[in-house]
Amino acid sequence: MHRFEIRVRYGDVDQMGWVYYGNYLRWFEIGRAEMLRSLGRTYREVEDDLGVLMPVLEARCRYFHGARYDERVTIATGLLDHGRATMRFGYRILGEDGETCAVGLTEHCFTTRDARLVRPPAMLRDLLGLAPVVDDGLRAQLGA
Amino acid sequence: MHRFEIRVRYGDVDQMGWVYYGNYLRWFEIGRAEMLRSLGRTYREVEDDLGVLMPVLEARCRYFHGARYDERVTIATGLLDHGRATMRFGYRILGEDGETCAVGLTEHCFTTRDARLVRPPAMLRDLLGLAPVVDDGLRAQLGA
Amino acid sequence: MHRFEIRVRYGDVDQMGWVYYGNYLRWFEIGRAEMLRSLGRTYREVEDDLGVLMPVLEARCRYFHGARYDERVTIATGLLDHGRATMRFGYRILGEDGETCAVGLTEHCFTTRDARLVRPPAMLRDLLGLAPVVDDGLRAQLGA
Amino acid sequence: MHRFEIRVRYGDVDQMGWVYYGNYLRWFEIGRAEMLRSLGRTYREVEDDLGVLMPVLEARCRYFHGARYDERVTIATGLLDHGRATMRFGYRILGEDGETCAVGLTEHCFTTRDARLVRPPAMLRDLLGLAPVVDDGLRAQLGA
Repeated sequence: MHRFEIRVRYGDVDQMGWVYYGNYLRWFEIGRAEMLRSLGRTYREVEDDLGVLMPVLEARCRYFHGARYDERVTIATGLLDHGRATMRFGYRILGEDGETCAVGLTEHCFTTRDARLVRPPAMLRDLLGLAPVVDDGLRAQLGA
Repeated sequence: MHRFEIRVRYGDVDQMGWVYYGNYLRWFEIGRAEMLRSLGRTYREVEDDLGVLMPVLEARCRYFHGARYDERVTIATGLLDHGRATMRFGYRILGEDGETCAVGLTEHCFTTRDARLVRPPAMLRDLLGLAPVVDDGLRAQLGA
Repeated sequence: MHRFEIRVRYGDVDQMGWVYYGNYLRWFEIGRAEMLRSLGRTYREVEDDLGVLMPVLEARCRYFHGARYDERVTIATGLLDHGRATMRFGYRILGEDGETCAVGLTEHCFTTRDARLVRPPAMLRDLLGLAPVVDDGLRAQLGA
Repeated sequence: MHRFEIRVRYGDVDQMGWVYYGNYLRWFEIGRAEMLRSLGRTYREVEDDLGVLMPVLEARCRYFHGARYDERVTIATGLLDHGRATMRFGYRILGEDGETCAVGLTEHCFTTRDARLVRPPAMLRDLLGLAPVVDDGLRAQLGA
């Protein structure tokens, strides 16, 4: 799976002292953007050059261990599966000591700027054919 | 189900012109806090007076229709189910014209401030016995 | 000055237990949007009907007393002053017990959607002529 | 001045297509945390080991040019000045092509965990004596 490191910032943490649960979805967004970039294209190009948006149909996150302020976390991202008109990414968030903080998935469709559903453009389909896939451990944890 | 209205703010919306997908989890938090308040207690009291935290074990959201800037959305919240040591809330986000923007759930456990798992305190168990439950439509949509 | 109440949410508070300092600028945005609404129009209409944006040129905030989780805070908003091409709003954030949590200001210009500077449209100029102005105490605190 | 690069994420951008104005204060936080780290210590250590917090007394930001989605921005951070009980940092946010997106400052005091004002601990004072200072151009732009 593709790996990308980020650091937990002060504003990410709530008064429990752990990262606020909604912020993990932002990390998932970073994970899929950086995975795409590692394949040679960017989501900005998908939007700007192809005129295609990838809105989220579903997001899930299971939380195991809260990340803390200033911790260096790793976002591991892979393709979970795809149909003709949708695709799903899987994510594992790893803390500094390698333990799993959270796992999750997002499902996406493809639309034009005026929100009409379309098939994924060939460039994107080809690109995602090269994407790393989620490992079996993550697939099992996601039950999906 | 308990209903609470909020307004979409400028910073909530991304460049697609719809509410950023991670922000719905914040709305779920508002929904369960206000449902608890409507029953006569607050989550702040649960933390401060009982010393009990309710961290999130899992969150799911399915997105149907993006909410827009300045739209008045309704957060409908209900109890989905509970076990001896966990409980789940269900949520429906309704747009101004009554259509469903999103549905979701959160699962929670109960811990002390130093993160030891505990049973829910009696006050909270009694309170949640009075909570509105999710309607059958939402239960079916959540598949849970 | 125009007054609008909001409640501090869990995700707004950092691990110090006080509202994260950047979130006050979001409250200023809420304050000026609701002040405009109280005058009979909305910022959404300004953007959608007039095609005019009001980007922020400058923002300042002085912090006196941190707001806490679940606290009910009041955003007091007024017009600070305006020139031919810019205008400034002043804000006071009041805690539940009436003490001042923070004061601040934002300065705005007017642009088309493609970022060309324009004069404020007549509708907006007329409207803002009706806006409440900041009180002398706030003006002094802002030193502006 | 100390330089640190970050990338603009989807959720950072509002429907104007530019970074939401409140998010720059988060970047200032990143800038001062990373400047401190570059000097050999971390803000987490200041809080955890010394028991000292550095709450913000004032924040200012002037906006010149909005940063866009996926843009790589540089946060330049330096010490602006300090008194016996307070200190100020200055910041310049640079876009990918080197233009200035924004400049700003934050003023901080030093407190114990229970919010009593204290002098900065010697370790911190020594450390900040080594910190890069803001350049004259920034000082002039900040008018401070």
